Amino acid sequence: ASESNLIRATLFPGDGIGPEIAESVKQVFRVADVPIEWEEHFVGTEIDPRTQSFLTWESLESVRQNKVGLKGPMATPIGKGHRSLNLTLRKELNLYANVRPCYSLPGYKTKYDDVDLITIRENTEGEYSGLEHQVVRGVVESLKIITRSASLRVAEYAFHYAKAHGRQRVSAIHKANIMQKTDGLFLKCCREVAEKYPEIVYEEVVIDNCCMMLVKNPALFDVLVMPNLYGDIISDLCAGLIGGLGLTPSVNIGEGGIALAEAVHGSAPDIAGKNLANPTALLLSAVSMLRHLDLHDKADRIQDAVLKTIAEGKYRTGDLGGKSTTTEFTNAICDHI
Amino acid sequence: ASESNLIRATLFPGDGIGPEIAESVKQVFRVADVPIEWEEHFVGTEIDPRTQSFLTWESLESVRQNKVGLKGPMATPIGKGHRSLNLTLRKELNLYANVRPCYSLPGYKTKYDDVDLITIRENTEGEYSGLEHQVVRGVVESLKIITRSASLRVAEYAFHYAKAHGRQRVSAIHKANIMQKTDGLFLKCCREVAEKYPEIVYEEVVIDNCCMMLVKNPALFDVLVMPNLYGDIISDLCAGLIGGLGLTPSVNIGEGGIALAEAVHGSAPDIAGKNLANPTALLLSAVSMLRHLDLHDKADRIQDAVLKTIAEGKYRTGDLGGKSTTTEFTNAICDHI
Ligand SMILES: CC(C)[C@H](C(=O)O)[C@@H](O)C(=O)O
Ligand SMILES: CC(C)[C@H](C(=O)O)[C@@H](O)C(=O)O
Repeated sequence: ASESNLIRATLFPGDGIGPEIAESVKQVFRVADVPIEWEEHFVGTEIDPRTQSFLTWESLESVRQNKVGLKGPMATPIGKGHRSLNLTLRKELNLYANVRPCYSLPGYKTKYDDVDLITIRENTEGEYSGLEHQVVRGVVESLKIITRSASLRVAEYAFHYAKAHGRQRVSAIHKANIMQKTDGLFLKCCREVAEKYPEIVYEEVVIDNCCMMLVKNPALFDVLVMPNLYGDIISDLCAGLIGGLGLTPSVNIGEGGIALAEAVHGSAPDIAGKNLANPTALLLSAVSMLRHLDLHDKADRIQDAVLKTIAEGKYRTGDLGGKSTTTEFTNAICDHI
Repeated sequence: ASESNLIRATLFPGDGIGPEIAESVKQVFRVADVPIEWEEHFVGTEIDPRTQSFLTWESLESVRQNKVGLKGPMATPIGKGHRSLNLTLRKELNLYANVRPCYSLPGYKTKYDDVDLITIRENTEGEYSGLEHQVVRGVVESLKIITRSASLRVAEYAFHYAKAHGRQRVSAIHKANIMQKTDGLFLKCCREVAEKYPEIVYEEVVIDNCCMMLVKNPALFDVLVMPNLYGDIISDLCAGLIGGLGLTPSVNIGEGGIALAEAVHGSAPDIAGKNLANPTALLLSAVSMLRHLDLHDKADRIQDAVLKTIAEGKYRTGDLGGKSTTTEFTNAICDHI
């Protein structure tokens, strides 16, 4: 890729196994000749007063300017009064939709071989408001906040996504039979948006029933859109269907066209630095980032190489039952490019 | 069974397919010579001012006096201001714990053959408080209430249940990393109770991770205890693992030793009155009721007959892929008793 065509993207390698799997992405991108120039930012060792967290102001500015980034796992340092790094990123960058494509990996066998769905999670409000207090001793309450603006915004994104990706159906997941006002407002917004997309089938599914249907027959679902906590739960459930968080990509969409792709698994401190980590989730997240940039050729090549390597089964990391190092697995992917 | 030894139990046949599956339970109980005398109560056709719902005061009094009952599906009549019948029962009778044993049925094949767990759900508060309001136009909130008393009560029940049934482990399911105060209080109560049961392994699992683990390997779990909404979600997910709500029993435990067993599936109005309904969930709920009454012999005989009939596969209702009527399936069970 020639210097002048380079797209700048922010890279947060993150903690634990983060730097190793980020290294793997950088290597694969080099081999695939992806026109990306990384701007690396690490989590700070002290609280930055401008972000009130260990995330530096500069790193957030970098994402705001580049509008595109990739993030490894970040463990929030334990102790009082520290905002979670992941939540800080979502709030500060207004990352309003978390998008997780979830499909059965050819060649990696689980109980399910027909998963092909996308979960789209409202990422800024709901049960994550942070508003909680003690009413009297022994009685506490948490507030779940649903707004029309955030609900419309994520619903718009879901239908837009469905249409752009040739998807047939959007299911809004809710518990409006119990939370009539909050989830009711969420559904109302989804219905409003649905009317603008007559070509897409719209349905509403109660969350408990949705979870039952997902484990019985995930092929029933296509695009799912939902409030924050349900998205948290259902996206992990879906990841479980195809093998776990080590295999599932994720992208956070923010106001102003920001896309921050992220591996949502943990930082696995127990195996950090041992060259044992599986970079698949971060690689496939990077692929999602490329698609967001309309670099579909590169995205296809890398995705195919990753899936082929896993399917062949010769080089797999320990979490997938193999014995390969991160480096060996990454080299195998590069050989396929 | 001689007149004098009869135990009175309340029976709510419920709506839709309710009366047919209740008939099936009555027949099986007669054949198995179960010393139960049913006191039948139907949902009223008008609102009873004393219950503010279609449930009659007499029917609630009947459960309060008998302390034991069985309930078919009840659809809440659609219209404004009607309290859900199920929620009314939970509130009025203070049914604080919903207990659902969930095990793979020998002979009924799903993707999972090693499920054997119990979900215990707090059934009175949490996200089901009914407290919701509009803050300003376009901004609504719901309150989740967690109390020390209700959390201790359900935790006590869970550990008591685990010990009484020879279970090894209790997992408290939560999202205390986000709802530190509410779910934090719930966990605190579980920990307090756990200390009194050193022989039982206690662990805490975040709900999203729990769902992922459940679909990957349900055998990891034994007894799960959790706040209301998580219980709603996870108990349905678990039902899905073994085939659905048509196969899973449920019992609600109330203050003062009340046990109201219930089939938690819907009333299936489309097949009502056609002799097509599957009575398994209500039958197995009735079995749970018998166990609560320490009538283990009768419980074992009926449970064995139901499972054997399903396993043989000759007589199965349509939902399980068979062609039998409710009557044929019930007769086959009776033949096994
Ligand atoms: C780590 C945690 C705060 C986070 C969440 O609940 O959103 C995680 O589960 C996720 O899904 O990104
Ligand atoms: C019907 C509905 C109100 C109910 C609930 O949410 O509790 C149901 O899903 C259940 O689990 O019994």
